Amino acid sequence: MNLHFAPMACSLATRIALYEAGAPASFTPVNLKSKSLADGSSFLDLAPLGQVPALLIDDGTVITESTAVLQYVADRFPESKLAPPSGLQRTRLQQWLGFIGTELHKGIFIPLLDLHASDEVKRWGRDKLASRFALLQAHLERQDLLLDEISVADAYLFTILNWTRVTGIDLSRWPAIAAYHQRLAQRPAFRKATAEEWALYQAEEANKNN
Amino acid sequence: MNLHFAPMACSLATRIALYEAGAPASFTPVNLKSKSLADGSSFLDLAPLGQVPALLIDDGTVITESTAVLQYVADRFPESKLAPPSGLQRTRLQQWLGFIGTELHKGIFIPLLDLHASDEVKRWGRDKLASRFALLQAHLERQDLLLDEISVADAYLFTILNWTRVTGIDLSRWPAIAAYHQRLAQRPAFRKATAEEWALYQAEEANKNN
Repeated sequence: MNLHFAPMACSLATRIALYEAGAPASFTPVNLKSKSLADGSSFLDLAPLGQVPALLIDDGTVITESTAVLQYVADRFPESKLAPPSGLQRTRLQQWLGFIGTELHKGIFIPLLDLHASDEVKRWGRDKLASRFALLQAHLERQDLLLDEISVADAYLFTILNWTRVTGIDLSRWPAIAAYHQRLAQRPAFRKATAEEWALYQAEEANKNN
Repeated sequence: MNLHFAPMACSLATRIALYEAGAPASFTPVNLKSKSLADGSSFLDLAPLGQVPALLIDDGTVITESTAVLQYVADRFPESKLAPPSGLQRTRLQQWLGFIGTELHKGIFIPLLDLHASDEVKRWGRDKLASRFALLQAHLERQDLLLDEISVADAYLFTILNWTRVTGIDLSRWPAIAAYHQRLAQRPAFRKATAEEWALYQAEEANKNN
């Protein structure tokens, strides 16, 4: 398997899931601005919308969309128990993946992170933060993880919460969310994935400024 | 099962899936403005974000998020074959559900339909339409449905495409998408669900204007 990723983008969730699963995988960085790979080839040939994650699997199939890629990784390595195999607990996982993907990722953080979004668009996104984070805060006051056990939904939510740093959101206003984020950051797979991508991200930023 | 819905909202996809599956279900309309039910009780007690669909199942559990609710209905009635049970075809279904939920529903149509969104926010949403619809057009030029067989992803996409009418998007610019939408509209379950909700929607609109 080969994960096409951009440092600290939502593809970090898939890297975390691969590390949690101990999965053999290689990693290919994507230049999201030029939509190209390091060898100059076009990323759009692989993923027509030019979005990461794009997971290339052994038969040459490309899987996109975080909610699908994460469930694929979990199901491919069932012994990692990163997703309940079926039943109502699987539905709960899908509900959290849906919430994170639509309400947080697309509904709030894409407006906040989009370089082409005006202040008015960013304000429109940020207006939804309080209700969504209140729901999360209430849930995480009651339990340590989104489900009873660690899952790919935690990898996805952790990745999105990383973005509060660059968007000026003070996570300490939601103590249960902040504590959850800090707890996950201590898990070896989360720590290793984040440290590696943070270093790549900082190198990219330094290059931009040179 | 009881589906909490609003006429012509994204919950229509779940009604279509229930009709396709021949599932025994009842339907409770939600006033999305007041977040209340007809008996005056608060919808927020059931669904904290006040969003439809909210599917109340037999043991009192509430399922939210279209991508989770639709897969639940499909898996609960496997003989309806509305979702591949597992494997790479299931991953493809989840990829389409993710695309529809994040790129179309939240990324484009929520800005366009949000009564609190300014023209600038609507323009920001609409700017993404061409690339997303080009991807769909290319896919539907090659095949009649999103997967090889009818699935809950078609019910979801059909529901979102209905919204082109009220947002002034001329679907005839994408002939394969327009033909797909018209084909699905002829299927009995799609036709029945849409006719019922369209009548309820028009009644609501008439009430607003009185």
